Amino acid sequence: MIKLIDDLWFKRRDIVSDGFNESLDYIGKIIPLKVHKIPSGTRCWTWTVPEKWTVKSAYIEDTEGNRLLDLKNHPLHVLSYSLPVDKVVSKEELFRHLHISEKRPKAIPFEYKYYDRDWGFCVQAERLKDFSKDKYRVFIDAKFEKDVLRLGESHIKGRNKDTIVIVAHLCHPAMVNDDLSGVAVLAKLAKELHGRKNNYSYKILFLPETIGSIAFLSQNMNIIPHIKYGIFLEMLGNDNSLALQFSHQGNTKIDKIARYAMSRRLKIFREGPFRSIVRNDEMVFNGPGVNIPMISISRSPYPEYHTSDDNPSIISEERLDEAGEVVSYILDVMERDYLPKRNFTGPIFLSGFGLWVDWKTNPELKRTMEKIMLNLEGDLSIFDISEKVGLDFENTWGLINKLKEKRLVV
Amino acid sequence: MIKLIDDLWFKRRDIVSDGFNESLDYIGKIIPLKVHKIPSGTRCWTWTVPEKWTVKSAYIEDTEGNRLLDLKNHPLHVLSYSLPVDKVVSKEELFRHLHISEKRPKAIPFEYKYYDRDWGFCVQAERLKDFSKDKYRVFIDAKFEKDVLRLGESHIKGRNKDTIVIVAHLCHPAMVNDDLSGVAVLAKLAKELHGRKNNYSYKILFLPETIGSIAFLSQNMNIIPHIKYGIFLEMLGNDNSLALQFSHQGNTKIDKIARYAMSRRLKIFREGPFRSIVRNDEMVFNGPGVNIPMISISRSPYPEYHTSDDNPSIISEERLDEAGEVVSYILDVMERDYLPKRNFTGPIFLSGFGLWVDWKTNPELKRTMEKIMLNLEGDLSIFDISEKVGLDFENTWGLINKLKEKRLVV
Amino acid sequence: MIKLIDDLWFKRRDIVSDGFNESLDYIGKIIPLKVHKIPSGTRCWTWTVPEKWTVKSAYIEDTEGNRLLDLKNHPLHVLSYSLPVDKVVSKEELFRHLHISEKRPKAIPFEYKYYDRDWGFCVQAERLKDFSKDKYRVFIDAKFEKDVLRLGESHIKGRNKDTIVIVAHLCHPAMVNDDLSGVAVLAKLAKELHGRKNNYSYKILFLPETIGSIAFLSQNMNIIPHIKYGIFLEMLGNDNSLALQFSHQGNTKIDKIARYAMSRRLKIFREGPFRSIVRNDEMVFNGPGVNIPMISISRSPYPEYHTSDDNPSIISEERLDEAGEVVSYILDVMERDYLPKRNFTGPIFLSGFGLWVDWKTNPELKRTMEKIMLNLEGDLSIFDISEKVGLDFENTWGLINKLKEKRLVV
Repeated sequence: MIKLIDDLWFKRRDIVSDGFNESLDYIGKIIPLKVHKIPSGTRCWTWTVPEKWTVKSAYIEDTEGNRLLDLKNHPLHVLSYSLPVDKVVSKEELFRHLHISEKRPKAIPFEYKYYDRDWGFCVQAERLKDFSKDKYRVFIDAKFEKDVLRLGESHIKGRNKDTIVIVAHLCHPAMVNDDLSGVAVLAKLAKELHGRKNNYSYKILFLPETIGSIAFLSQNMNIIPHIKYGIFLEMLGNDNSLALQFSHQGNTKIDKIARYAMSRRLKIFREGPFRSIVRNDEMVFNGPGVNIPMISISRSPYPEYHTSDDNPSIISEERLDEAGEVVSYILDVMERDYLPKRNFTGPIFLSGFGLWVDWKTNPELKRTMEKIMLNLEGDLSIFDISEKVGLDFENTWGLINKLKEKRLVV
Repeated sequence: MIKLIDDLWFKRRDIVSDGFNESLDYIGKIIPLKVHKIPSGTRCWTWTVPEKWTVKSAYIEDTEGNRLLDLKNHPLHVLSYSLPVDKVVSKEELFRHLHISEKRPKAIPFEYKYYDRDWGFCVQAERLKDFSKDKYRVFIDAKFEKDVLRLGESHIKGRNKDTIVIVAHLCHPAMVNDDLSGVAVLAKLAKELHGRKNNYSYKILFLPETIGSIAFLSQNMNIIPHIKYGIFLEMLGNDNSLALQFSHQGNTKIDKIARYAMSRRLKIFREGPFRSIVRNDEMVFNGPGVNIPMISISRSPYPEYHTSDDNPSIISEERLDEAGEVVSYILDVMERDYLPKRNFTGPIFLSGFGLWVDWKTNPELKRTMEKIMLNLEGDLSIFDISEKVGLDFENTWGLINKLKEKRLVV
Repeated sequence: MIKLIDDLWFKRRDIVSDGFNESLDYIGKIIPLKVHKIPSGTRCWTWTVPEKWTVKSAYIEDTEGNRLLDLKNHPLHVLSYSLPVDKVVSKEELFRHLHISEKRPKAIPFEYKYYDRDWGFCVQAERLKDFSKDKYRVFIDAKFEKDVLRLGESHIKGRNKDTIVIVAHLCHPAMVNDDLSGVAVLAKLAKELHGRKNNYSYKILFLPETIGSIAFLSQNMNIIPHIKYGIFLEMLGNDNSLALQFSHQGNTKIDKIARYAMSRRLKIFREGPFRSIVRNDEMVFNGPGVNIPMISISRSPYPEYHTSDDNPSIISEERLDEAGEVVSYILDVMERDYLPKRNFTGPIFLSGFGLWVDWKTNPELKRTMEKIMLNLEGDLSIFDISEKVGLDFENTWGLINKLKEKRLVV
């Protein structure tokens, strides 16, 4: 995962851009990837696909030719989707187009103007004092072209058509935790899923934030009914506990299982309702008229968010691994969960099936076994039963599996 | 409103009586009024319409001809619907037919015997000491005649057939707060409703208590399915805070909107379940087999209740106005509330519709806008949405109206 | 009841045995009893009917012929369904087959091996010290034969087919509170039910625990849909308060009425969820695929449970009577409860039906009468209405009965 991050992090991965395309190609060498291409200008519900944006060079000079800021030094120095500009402006006008982070004066902030366009530069707040002259030459050689928005889909066909979608966005240039950490964890997970038989089908998506999800779903509305659950991954490498953001529904199978998986695998974790911890593509997948329950897993918040400080030094492989393992366990429980249905009447003759539990030596297990017996009507899944009888999923699965081996449940 | 009260208050407005008819004629000059006439003896569900009752004179004299009580002095001196009497009785017998108010010894109580009939007088408790002789002549020249029970209906046709009924009773003779205050507020409100276009249809009813509602509904059962909500008005002029009594259902649209309207327009108000604050015609409208959710608005209780002290001195125009304005605002919210339905898929491209809210400058509004977007499925009214997202009705209505102007909701 | 106990208690009433058959014949002389006979080896759902077991003699001797334990002294000295044995064993081997009660060292415990068979003796813990030799002769002359499992059914036909089943088990040899006390109370109750007209039909069952219920239901599955409720009776004579164990559903009519009846008839009683107080045939009747709501009434726990100390000295007729009366009252309320349906519209003209309640003298009753009027839609039973309006069953029944006499409800 660290290699993918090292190789891709400093690229300009703006929403429609050469850097985005190169990054998608890179991932396509790790896992099978179908690249969807949606032309600029395509109407996607209430949205429109933007043009490709390319910036060659950009700088600010004083009238004596001293270069005060140069894109060469850092990709974040120019507003993403900035208009081109080439003129001499007053200090006052320049400052209206200079973006800073007040909270992190040593860092360059990440800013964008995808739709309400303008030209602009981003600069360390502590460097503002260097802009002491009255006039400046501002130069941005940026180009807008009709092209195609690309998004990568890796489909893993399972035993049934019910699909879980797992999404990471890839469009944040020259940053790591947001959003390459999610991409790295997801690429590794996708490889594992490709390597085994699954009950669910999976769609793994790498796309530009919001417009990517909108483009994908609006152009493929026929698949929406098959997508039963979603997971969004992002900010997984920084030094904060993992956080589960529930879906809009808040109490679906994946919400409950994710909560259970996190409580079993982590000493500490946080949780919160929809849109309370992170704000990403879950608003599209779980949005009006789509409404696929999508949880989000992240380590949000972190102080370097949306600045040049979000670089490889703030993440670690251990934390990426921990996140990946939790997501794997969520899927593991999802995969093993099903609706067991009783194939017997009355209390089971446990002695006859080698399932006798002595009441005197283990009253708790005996009572739980009875409760399980009373809940095999086919309307509750193993996970539901485990919650209802107050036993963990693994042991509930174990007991019901014994009944299944004896053909007492189907 | 005060003029209506001044003109009508001292009349004998017994349930079927000349005074009632004159009062109804008076209201008919303020607003259009259809007068329903239901003959005495008509079976109305389990009830029967009573005869018209008229009393010409009534008095109590001692055997020496000293008149101790005379109807001329106050209409309340005779039991409403008293039988006629003309005989000499012992003090003991007289006292069995003398009604007093122990709580207000200086006031004449209001008493009636509509169905279990008897003869009787009402007198100030402090005057009992004047009845010191052994024998008295009691005289009541009362007459029972077949006639018709009258009730006034002012119908205001709206854009749709769903109807709100608003009721005040008019049958309490020589008293003001109970019941002319409700009549006055309702007549003014009806005039306003007649003067504008409404979505709901309205039926404004002035009738004798209980039997009037029963007569109206039992003789017009075909209209019951159109009546969706009801409001009962009474005791609106005295010096106590306004009180909302919920309908029997307790949680219908009108219950919730009335509670909201009162909380917005009043510094203080009270509330309570069905039949806990007042006891009037809501038991008929909201009763078995009719079951129209009817709230009641009043300033109950007040100390002069059902006595001769309930006269113009205890009410004020300000308090009538305040009550009228609250009821108007309830209807205003009812009129503006509807089920908005989403005409878009996915999150709205807010920038494109001039509806962009900057996350950083107004996170709360942005979040609320998202919550609204997620609740436009056509199953929740604007008021429901406002309660669900925790924004007041006016602002919720404002935001949804903007979406409506853009044709994003229909 | 005491006579039945005295006559039957010391019998070997093992699940298929001569003693069980004799006990059933005895009950058949008190009430009409149909005896179902299900052959040994019959498959009953996942269970199989066992053979008849007979033991003639059993003892333990030391090698010098000193008899240390003899079945003649107490029926509990041999494990119920013990295998036959006749050999000399080491002290170590003997002790593996000796059962004691650590909690009650002076008592012989009741132990059984119905399915996982073995030979074995039961002995007072304080007598273990007498077994000081190295070798012992163990002798059990037990016989297993194909025969029939018997269970007694007393059916009482009521006005409708909805049936309440009441069950007691009869298979605990030489003990009294568990299980003859339940049998005695049930036999008396059955006699009463036979002597009167009932709305419900009743099935009174006397059977061996668990396998008896399984055999009965599995061989008579067509009757299951008619059985609406069940009551299990046991441990009713000892000195502890009565305890209500709710059905698996927990909130059915019989659960609620039983709770009400106990609260009305007893100063103190206990209650608990399904399988928390006693563990008997309710697991069959209320079990998977049968699911008849079955409450259990007992005085569990008691210290002499499953030992030779459970003898006539620990029970009393008074406590049996108290238990019987509570169960009678449960059935009495069940019998009188029905769904009253309104035959009127609007509030009732109470004066006209002699049902007038003066608001001033009895506001509480007036209010309750109104609440009752508002709940006669035919979806709530009298008991439900009584709970909803907060009046006890008897008074609610009384008021509704007055309306019924006036044909205002049907």
